[in-house]
Amino acid sequence: MSTIRPTSSLFPNAPVRIVDVTARDGLQNETDIVPTDTKLELIQHLVDAGHKDIEVTSLVRPSWIPQLADAELLLRNLPVAEDVRFWALIPNRKGMERALNVGVKHVATFMSASNTHNRKNLNRTQLESLENIRIVTEMALDEGATVRAYLSTVFGCPYEGDVAVETTVELTQKLLALGISEISLGDTTGMGNPVLVEKVIQGLIDANVPLDKIALHMHDTQGTGLANILAGYQMGVRTFDASTAGVGGCPYAPGASGNVATEDLINLFHKMGCDTGVDLEKAAMAGQFLANALQKPLPGSFHKYFSASCSTSDKTTA
Amino acid sequence: MSTIRPTSSLFPNAPVRIVDVTARDGLQNETDIVPTDTKLELIQHLVDAGHKDIEVTSLVRPSWIPQLADAELLLRNLPVAEDVRFWALIPNRKGMERALNVGVKHVATFMSASNTHNRKNLNRTQLESLENIRIVTEMALDEGATVRAYLSTVFGCPYEGDVAVETTVELTQKLLALGISEISLGDTTGMGNPVLVEKVIQGLIDANVPLDKIALHMHDTQGTGLANILAGYQMGVRTFDASTAGVGGCPYAPGASGNVATEDLINLFHKMGCDTGVDLEKAAMAGQFLANALQKPLPGSFHKYFSASCSTSDKTTA
Repeated sequence: MSTIRPTSSLFPNAPVRIVDVTARDGLQNETDIVPTDTKLELIQHLVDAGHKDIEVTSLVRPSWIPQLADAELLLRNLPVAEDVRFWALIPNRKGMERALNVGVKHVATFMSASNTHNRKNLNRTQLESLENIRIVTEMALDEGATVRAYLSTVFGCPYEGDVAVETTVELTQKLLALGISEISLGDTTGMGNPVLVEKVIQGLIDANVPLDKIALHMHDTQGTGLANILAGYQMGVRTFDASTAGVGGCPYAPGASGNVATEDLINLFHKMGCDTGVDLEKAAMAGQFLANALQKPLPGSFHKYFSASCSTSDKTTA
Repeated sequence: MSTIRPTSSLFPNAPVRIVDVTARDGLQNETDIVPTDTKLELIQHLVDAGHKDIEVTSLVRPSWIPQLADAELLLRNLPVAEDVRFWALIPNRKGMERALNVGVKHVATFMSASNTHNRKNLNRTQLESLENIRIVTEMALDEGATVRAYLSTVFGCPYEGDVAVETTVELTQKLLALGISEISLGDTTGMGNPVLVEKVIQGLIDANVPLDKIALHMHDTQGTGLANILAGYQMGVRTFDASTAGVGGCPYAPGASGNVATEDLINLFHKMGCDTGVDLEKAAMAGQFLANALQKPLPGSFHKYFSASCSTSDKTTA
């Protein structure tokens, strides 16, 4: 893939960091349990592709998300790859204890920017979530682990609608003050748009939040994922979460999109001349592997494009 | 759908014009012949949604594209909608004669920015295509018709790779000099990226081509359609082609994307506060109608999102 880059005044030319969340966020809503070996094979594909940040599982109560009930087994059998950060989502103190038992060094916590979504999704108020995250973060930092936090529904809440930028800024600051390294702002149900992305990031800039502590976790529910990410990139964000072949997120209809697809994101940035450190073809092969493993078509575009060479003989194609 | 728009320094706030190409570009590659009545019902949906530019068919030789063999029948039975421009794609003098016989007033012509693609797709050199377009345009203008031209493979050719911006600028100028009102720059196989879109549009600006004579016809083959359109919008383009539910384009794999989906495009711009003059919900209903008529899932995102309300009870969605 050629990356000779024309001069641009709209788009800076900077490397981008991708956090692949397939094995946790991507798979957690799959009703058929994916065997641990298949998950490990997927993770090996991601490592081989050059990913340095891979979210692999969650230490939630196994009865809560049966798909992730193999967390410890998976964590004990991860590929040996010292330069890769394997992230585990930790819901509470009990989960953190389990995580530390298996040597987790990269911890993801989570809460919602919308109070209603926080209560419905996590059965806690935002204050209770912050206290919970404080405890988990303290335990993690005491063991030398690194912590990132998901702040979901930043770009819209299915219950409340708009979420105030001020709320996002305040919660981001509170989370960073706990010693958390990175806040991943989530467009949980794909309600965002480029103008809103600009507004949120501008709010953080105005509050002196360093953008190297901000990631964007955009869903493609309404097809606007990459456009929103492009706006985030223009505003200075350089870290983006994505899921291989677009699995996960909020899958409401067959073939519908949830998370932005990792390969689609890599392809966009490589075409723009921005390095991601990930091999696009190998990332696409991970997508093909996953589609085969799940035995269904997955929403991402690039892995399909990569699979089938496009017929170029269409008549009067304009 | 709320369109209260936050202040933006990245994105201007301007109305956008959409040219829906479903009934021609969208359907022409469908192997199962769609009944004329179904096409007319689709077109009625588009009119009801508020579309003012609808490409309805092509007067190519019927044996060439059997799907469009009903061109005259369709054109004679279009909805009565005086403020709607119904476009027909015209390949040559013979097609133009047929078009004039049924009172076509809005003519689309086409050629490729890549010489190889032009030869393989149209069996003509670019010079021969220009001469052919000159004849068709003259015939059309003599009858008081309006002419737009598709210039395809502007953002990459499957045979030649990169297409020089200078070529696009030169051909655009030649086509405009024939009296053509609008040049629609096509990303025929979805190879474009936002930086390249910027480069092409900047090339046109530098050559004093008025951007109100430029449209973008982006395909979503690699998932980058809306991101590319966003870049075009930032550069000052205000007219975009799209196909309902994303049918058509270069469909190389089941569920894969071709044209950018009309509803996805409308949704993006409405969320950004930019008026399109089209009712999003009715546009999405046109997508549902088409998916039902073709009896298969179509690639666009928004019509699916609109069909199924998203379950908001996912656990630990971040």
